[in-house]
Amino acid sequence: MTGDGRRPPQRRARKDPEAGRRPAPRGQARRAADRQGGQSGPSPDIALLYGFHAVREALTAGKRELLALYVTENALPRVAEFAAAAGVPPRIIEARELARRLGEEAVHQGLLLEARPLPELDVSEIAQNSGIVVALDQITDPHNVGAILRTAAAFAADALIVTERHAPQFDGVLAKAASGGLEHVDIVPVVNLARALDELSRLGHRLIGLDSEGSESLETTPLQKPVVLVLGAEGKGLRRLTRERCDAVARLDMPGAIKSLNVSNACAIALAILRRRLADGG
Amino acid sequence: MTGDGRRPPQRRARKDPEAGRRPAPRGQARRAADRQGGQSGPSPDIALLYGFHAVREALTAGKRELLALYVTENALPRVAEFAAAAGVPPRIIEARELARRLGEEAVHQGLLLEARPLPELDVSEIAQNSGIVVALDQITDPHNVGAILRTAAAFAADALIVTERHAPQFDGVLAKAASGGLEHVDIVPVVNLARALDELSRLGHRLIGLDSEGSESLETTPLQKPVVLVLGAEGKGLRRLTRERCDAVARLDMPGAIKSLNVSNACAIALAILRRRLADGG
Repeated sequence: MTGDGRRPPQRRARKDPEAGRRPAPRGQARRAADRQGGQSGPSPDIALLYGFHAVREALTAGKRELLALYVTENALPRVAEFAAAAGVPPRIIEARELARRLGEEAVHQGLLLEARPLPELDVSEIAQNSGIVVALDQITDPHNVGAILRTAAAFAADALIVTERHAPQFDGVLAKAASGGLEHVDIVPVVNLARALDELSRLGHRLIGLDSEGSESLETTPLQKPVVLVLGAEGKGLRRLTRERCDAVARLDMPGAIKSLNVSNACAIALAILRRRLADGG
Repeated sequence: MTGDGRRPPQRRARKDPEAGRRPAPRGQARRAADRQGGQSGPSPDIALLYGFHAVREALTAGKRELLALYVTENALPRVAEFAAAAGVPPRIIEARELARRLGEEAVHQGLLLEARPLPELDVSEIAQNSGIVVALDQITDPHNVGAILRTAAAFAADALIVTERHAPQFDGVLAKAASGGLEHVDIVPVVNLARALDELSRLGHRLIGLDSEGSESLETTPLQKPVVLVLGAEGKGLRRLTRERCDAVARLDMPGAIKSLNVSNACAIALAILRRRLADGG
């Protein structure tokens, strides 16, 4: 456990960037084979970041190796200062070339940064700075996971735990939705979430699952640092083996006709409650 | 003011469904002309609802005239009971025909309901049941506004005020993101938001704008029912004339590196805080 809060040096690249796009689950062997085989898409060792906030934070946070910055004439003034400070010379590119590379749907705002993926941590390496960790049980939508990362960064979460299978790719549309949050929250991919939760429990974390049918309110469930907030996918919720690991399964109190929220909205409310309660001493 | 909380009968159809799609602002005269002119898209008097929760809530809430329900063979068992109770015979349709009508991107889940748009209210007609109203200052993204509607329904907001110009269309992808919330929150479109806020102020509402640079915390700003939570678009924030109307401009306290949230996440946290503080007596 890196109790001093510093990140360990970059140890390994992120996993195959195609992982989040495949509908079928894949095992480790398959992934290893992919990485050795010829790949037609971008290299798994390159993260594509676009959109102003995602690119600016990557340039200023100083946590990645930066490879190349492509900028339209129009976008250059917004980013020139950050690029100079980061020592990355902007290369001028046409907007239609960005659209060709990233797809017509990508809201690139005239900016594309090629960089190395951020280092991934193991469970045992999670820093205990703020005392809040978020764990996602097979949440795959990159917009939702990106919004969760943005909010996790805003509430100074120490790490985001994701399942290696059924996780989105940590660049592109997710990084755009995270609006820079990706540079500020350590990502911890795990093969087996239940086992990771066991380990965190042994390390002293209190595990709180969130469920609209939870037996207690998140406002009153016993709380202590460090805490892990565990979120399930919309519709499916927490898997049985995940739920069984939790010390408490808590709900958000909502008086209205609709009883379930978008998962990033539920996460935002839960983080705000946890942060307030922990600041008040629980 | 309909103090008993019942909705007034349907008075007028929603405005031209193309309104949210046009990049250029349009005035009332233009809109009136549109409605008389020939239109090649769907009729402005028909709302297209797809996705399980959006369709189920429209079938069960009983707030709209239901016109036709199209269902794939696979989706039929999930919805048959609600359709029967609502008296709408399901018509079997191929999934590829749904994709053709709604676009390949639409997550229709095998369901399409054609219905009349919900009635729109005037500011003076807002019910005072729960004492919380949400006002959006030119927020156009249908995913965000849909998520806001879902959360507003969960926290029993009485109404959602939107600007007629720069508002998304209240069906389709927005209704899908609202996950049924559209049936539970009155929509109040206004031509001039500043004037609408003036009227609400005269009617006794406290107006609280949300801004990451707000001068006071939403946790401690003076509060009383009824309250209007005013949200601006991401990036642009509250317009000057909107901000000047607010009794307070408040921020969410966030200790992390990222200081601004996705607008639907900010709205969710703010609604949770307002609901808790009002329940505690302010």
